[in-house]
Amino acid sequence: MDKILQATADAAWILGEEGHDPLRESSHESRFAISNGFLGVRGARAATGGCRWAIPARTYVAGLFDTSTADGAIPELVPGADWLRVRILLDGKPLVDDPGDLSSHRMTLDMRRGVLLTECLQMNTPAVGVRLRTLRLVSLSERSLGLQLIQLDVEHGEVAVSLEASFEGMNLGLVAERVGQDLGVWRTPHSRKGLAMAAAPSLQVDGDEVPATALGELRWSWTWRSRPGQVACFARSVAVTRSDAPDLDPAADARDKLGAAQRLGWRGVVADHEAAWASRWRCSDVEVEGDPVAQQALRFAAYHLNSAANPADERVSIGARALTGDDYRGHVFWDTEIFLLPFYALTWPEAARALLVYRFHTLDAARAKAARMGWRGALYAWESADTGDEATPEQVIGPDRRVVDVLSGRLEQHISADVAYAVWQYWQATGDETFLLDFGAEILLETARFWASRARVEADGRHHIRGVIGPDEYHEDIDDNAFTNLMARWNIARGLEVVTLMGERWAGRWTQLSSRLGLEDVELKQWRAVADTISTGIDSSTGLIEQFAGYFALEEIDLADYAGRSVPMDVVLGRARTRQSQVIKQADVVALLALLPDEFIGDTAAENFHYYEPRCGHGSSLSRAMHGLVAARLGEPALALRYFHETAAIDLAETHAAIAGGVHIAALGGLWQMAVLGFAGLSIGADGVAIDPKLPASWRSLAFSVQWHGRQLRLRIAQAEQSLEATLEAGEPMTLVVCGTSYALDRDGALHISLREPQNAAA
Amino acid sequence: MDKILQATADAAWILGEEGHDPLRESSHESRFAISNGFLGVRGARAATGGCRWAIPARTYVAGLFDTSTADGAIPELVPGADWLRVRILLDGKPLVDDPGDLSSHRMTLDMRRGVLLTECLQMNTPAVGVRLRTLRLVSLSERSLGLQLIQLDVEHGEVAVSLEASFEGMNLGLVAERVGQDLGVWRTPHSRKGLAMAAAPSLQVDGDEVPATALGELRWSWTWRSRPGQVACFARSVAVTRSDAPDLDPAADARDKLGAAQRLGWRGVVADHEAAWASRWRCSDVEVEGDPVAQQALRFAAYHLNSAANPADERVSIGARALTGDDYRGHVFWDTEIFLLPFYALTWPEAARALLVYRFHTLDAARAKAARMGWRGALYAWESADTGDEATPEQVIGPDRRVVDVLSGRLEQHISADVAYAVWQYWQATGDETFLLDFGAEILLETARFWASRARVEADGRHHIRGVIGPDEYHEDIDDNAFTNLMARWNIARGLEVVTLMGERWAGRWTQLSSRLGLEDVELKQWRAVADTISTGIDSSTGLIEQFAGYFALEEIDLADYAGRSVPMDVVLGRARTRQSQVIKQADVVALLALLPDEFIGDTAAENFHYYEPRCGHGSSLSRAMHGLVAARLGEPALALRYFHETAAIDLAETHAAIAGGVHIAALGGLWQMAVLGFAGLSIGADGVAIDPKLPASWRSLAFSVQWHGRQLRLRIAQAEQSLEATLEAGEPMTLVVCGTSYALDRDGALHISLREPQNAAA
Repeated sequence: MDKILQATADAAWILGEEGHDPLRESSHESRFAISNGFLGVRGARAATGGCRWAIPARTYVAGLFDTSTADGAIPELVPGADWLRVRILLDGKPLVDDPGDLSSHRMTLDMRRGVLLTECLQMNTPAVGVRLRTLRLVSLSERSLGLQLIQLDVEHGEVAVSLEASFEGMNLGLVAERVGQDLGVWRTPHSRKGLAMAAAPSLQVDGDEVPATALGELRWSWTWRSRPGQVACFARSVAVTRSDAPDLDPAADARDKLGAAQRLGWRGVVADHEAAWASRWRCSDVEVEGDPVAQQALRFAAYHLNSAANPADERVSIGARALTGDDYRGHVFWDTEIFLLPFYALTWPEAARALLVYRFHTLDAARAKAARMGWRGALYAWESADTGDEATPEQVIGPDRRVVDVLSGRLEQHISADVAYAVWQYWQATGDETFLLDFGAEILLETARFWASRARVEADGRHHIRGVIGPDEYHEDIDDNAFTNLMARWNIARGLEVVTLMGERWAGRWTQLSSRLGLEDVELKQWRAVADTISTGIDSSTGLIEQFAGYFALEEIDLADYAGRSVPMDVVLGRARTRQSQVIKQADVVALLALLPDEFIGDTAAENFHYYEPRCGHGSSLSRAMHGLVAARLGEPALALRYFHETAAIDLAETHAAIAGGVHIAALGGLWQMAVLGFAGLSIGADGVAIDPKLPASWRSLAFSVQWHGRQLRLRIAQAEQSLEATLEAGEPMTLVVCGTSYALDRDGALHISLREPQNAAA
Repeated sequence: MDKILQATADAAWILGEEGHDPLRESSHESRFAISNGFLGVRGARAATGGCRWAIPARTYVAGLFDTSTADGAIPELVPGADWLRVRILLDGKPLVDDPGDLSSHRMTLDMRRGVLLTECLQMNTPAVGVRLRTLRLVSLSERSLGLQLIQLDVEHGEVAVSLEASFEGMNLGLVAERVGQDLGVWRTPHSRKGLAMAAAPSLQVDGDEVPATALGELRWSWTWRSRPGQVACFARSVAVTRSDAPDLDPAADARDKLGAAQRLGWRGVVADHEAAWASRWRCSDVEVEGDPVAQQALRFAAYHLNSAANPADERVSIGARALTGDDYRGHVFWDTEIFLLPFYALTWPEAARALLVYRFHTLDAARAKAARMGWRGALYAWESADTGDEATPEQVIGPDRRVVDVLSGRLEQHISADVAYAVWQYWQATGDETFLLDFGAEILLETARFWASRARVEADGRHHIRGVIGPDEYHEDIDDNAFTNLMARWNIARGLEVVTLMGERWAGRWTQLSSRLGLEDVELKQWRAVADTISTGIDSSTGLIEQFAGYFALEEIDLADYAGRSVPMDVVLGRARTRQSQVIKQADVVALLALLPDEFIGDTAAENFHYYEPRCGHGSSLSRAMHGLVAARLGEPALALRYFHETAAIDLAETHAAIAGGVHIAALGGLWQMAVLGFAGLSIGADGVAIDPKLPASWRSLAFSVQWHGRQLRLRIAQAEQSLEATLEAGEPMTLVVCGTSYALDRDGALHISLREPQNAAA
């Protein structure tokens, strides 16, 4: 077991914590979470003496939502039992009474291997000294599986040792259906989803199996006598399964999965898991030379992004804190489509596909929401859980502990365009025709239809969308939000494009689909009219976009005067005054620059960025990444790098304790986008991949992998040499456009392109 | 049981909640807490179906502190098990699966009786309809006792009923020593304090006892069949005891207490408890006519103040959230002596005495802290727990989730003068000579000695105190804080006064005490020198006090510009800029005006108040009460009333969710002070009680009781009549000074005094 318990030597793969800091513990639990997109386990400490009076360590199970019957209740992701609980007694005294009792304690997240390791020494009882090392993982190759390994090395002392393994928190939010010695089955009380957890623990002392005393209800104990030099190895495998229907019993599946794991043995489980991680890193690792903080942040981002998704489950998506914390109760926002999807589409298309098929499965709920509000087509839930029904709470407790009304569930409608945008990005990146025909086209059409019915023509002859909230949530119930209107126009245009495409290439499928959706030419004509005449807020003389009707007339507030603040601007100014001011919560027009760069010609992108950037208070963790991406593309790498580091600090700065409720997975997706889409200047079209790098001065090199239409590319940009190395690692020959010049790329070896000179085709 | 489950009819004694609001639930748990100064139980809902995945309902036990051995660990009040858990199954289905399943739910805090009542109907299963009513109390007459009553009225339906009663959260922070069927004994893991809980549950159906099935480990169940009209009554008595020494077993005491309660019967337990509350209300009720919101706030304040104290335990004091929530971990601040003590000294001297004797027992720790920092005498802990050792954390998480350093444990030294101040107030109010000789004098002398050693004479010939924090914690490590220096001077003066007093009246005791403390004339002479020459910050030309050296030169910030903010100013401006500004966190010079009114002659109090009031950001819940008290005394009742209502809103406004961590007991003490010491203008001297009322226009009358030197007075001020009615309800004749004129008060009936005319002695 020794070798398996050793962390990767290269520090760039490691996140470590020495000792114990109660104030930061709950943030560290988020940061050190392990997950495989189905199971998520917060990084609680390995051994407790039963003296932890905070909440038990959370194990989240994707999709295990329940909704109480109370007025205004919303779905909540219900945690399963904590399957890692261990209590070790040396001479009757708990080994880890509390963290302060340990002579040393080290927790190590080995991001390369996807495992959490801990190590501690207990030397303070004269009678006995032991070294305790643990490993935990949730398998990336078989997502039902969790594994816990504990090795106890006796340094000195001959005493009675007992180890008790249990499951804790079995009654928190779930109703027990049956709990036996090795298997528990629970149900969510209202949605009646099933959860089964089967466990097989074992203990060897110096290589000999020690029989367990079964204590009932997922509790076991072992007792033996220590002697100097003794090595005790504990292993616990668990299999966790979920069933979504009240009449389906998840137990048999859990037993089968556990049986397979036992036949494989825990060494095999670890090996398969590590192989799966190695494969993920081959596809998604980003390497930076010259900026170790950025390197660690990008590894951390890719670690959590790879942990968050599950290509095998099309019924779940990724919540705003992934499976690492309670905040937002597992709900899915536009974060997934806008901030996460580019990573998946370009490094893990299977995961991206599952996330989008989840949106296909929730299309009926989106259609119902639109119909209920008097519109056609599909209006997605602003917050989405298992069914796709609107899950936004009507009130929340604000950062100042006041209860505030939330209107986003009704008014923040750009979500429909965001989903369509992600569908299109995936289609561009993969050319996945089956997806387009089975799922994507219907999403594009139903969202386009929503916008066409949502916009109303007015006396000025233009179409308007009144009464919405844009990404900037400080301004509610506004008219003609430019982000919403331009994304709606873009969405309608893609709907029309898919109509043409299907008519040309898959006429039979088009006949079926258009007939099922009742889409006729007269409606498509109305779509075109909306797209042609929708109000855009663009001042044709200056190119400046007004964020929404009336924005330019609001109070200007110099945010520099509030530089010292450490809370969002709406809390500083009060909500009422903020609403009457130009202060923006997060990238809104700037988000438009990021998402639809082709809509901005000449200097208009720069002009709009420089107008809106100083007006933004960055009251959302999503905001800075959008600014960094746009700044990088506009050739302002120093400014972009500042946004990059500020975004990295959200989850990694030790000055904060703000991530107790989970990592900000969208901000982590934003880090990857700033590096790959920003500094490397990567863009994807239907015809191929283009790149236009502008690295920050401190970044000596930047290397990353992307996939495009079944191909796998590795790209490396070297700053001093001003060169690009492009390698086609898998797939058919393709074209790569570098700073505007096309190069043919094939499997015959790396292509080296100088970025210094005016470009000539080099291959 | 029917009658006992009915709430007091008069709405002014009631705090109610209908239905269920998850966002406010945890604030309501604080507001609806019941306590008797030894036990405190948060107002969690009565019945759960095992589906509550928040923390279990907390039962706090005063003094049950534990300190982990981690670096920088501080004592924390460890909650005991939740002894109220009940699960009722009707036809196998949990009665209260979750609050939303109930047709109706009402929670009622009956402040008059000191009980929490709930009532709900479950009609949504067609098979059966029941009405569930519950009561819980922790006895004010026997503080070890808790009682839970549940009555189940079957409206219709014949089904199988089962009721399971258990204790939950038994492993959260405590180590089980032994847990049996009817008794559990636990220890805090480090301090090795013992906790015993013994329980006796019983169930009657239509008057017949139903035998329990014992399920082991404080779990029982009962099963029977319902029939329409059936009444089932469940009663559970618990006795809780604490032992402070590792070798003391608290179990026998718990068994004895429980046995006595069983002999008395639960009706007797309720009756004794209600009699104890009736007696408390006779001594402490404040009645306001014309302002029902103020009336409710004053009842609520007195309810929690009467709940928080325990005259029988001199080893504990009252934490910043009393026994109603986790915030501040049960730690005791100056809040107790400055904000709470006046209420106790004047309405419940036995409680006040116990709180001060707690400070006597922690005097050695205070002497050790002073010595460690290089000074003489006693420097109390800024945050104090069981031993009196400094318990202030070195870092905390700020309102903006940043980790900030806390210097108060070293620098906020005015606490020593605050304790001395409270000792003197108690002495003035009671004339309790035994207390003064056994405890009070030593505190006064050792704190005076601290100040005399703390202040250093400098080149200007004056004594200075450098490097402190005053009540305004925005300005750290400052010199010559006026509050600190003037309170220090006052503390030394009282020390010298006690020297004189003891020398004159108890020469023998003085010889003993002075010899034990090593107090000689030469030292007393130095005290006098310090008191005479300490820097006060008073500008003799204007009478304006500079809050600390250099304050006047700091940046002026107009707080009106920040009127919309909903967070403290240091969060708005950032800590660095706030430190360089005149923005004050809380009453500092204004607190001095409140505590030492006699030090301010002529208009200087008003001048200082009007200078400092607009500079205060009220970043502490303690601040507004001090301002209201001073404003009332200065004859500005409208302004004072605004502060009164803002203070009441801290714990009672439904717009906030800020009291999840417990009620702000100091702000509640401040409400009482604003009413009695402010609007009624009550003051206490060694010679008697004086009153000088200035009621707000809306208050038609104000009536309250106070005790002075063994006497009990009831005073009622009528606004329209401009009259005062004074009744001496107990004790020897005394003098009452009304608006400067003395009246003799005896037991011959109420004295009626007109406040309208120039006063003449009327009796």
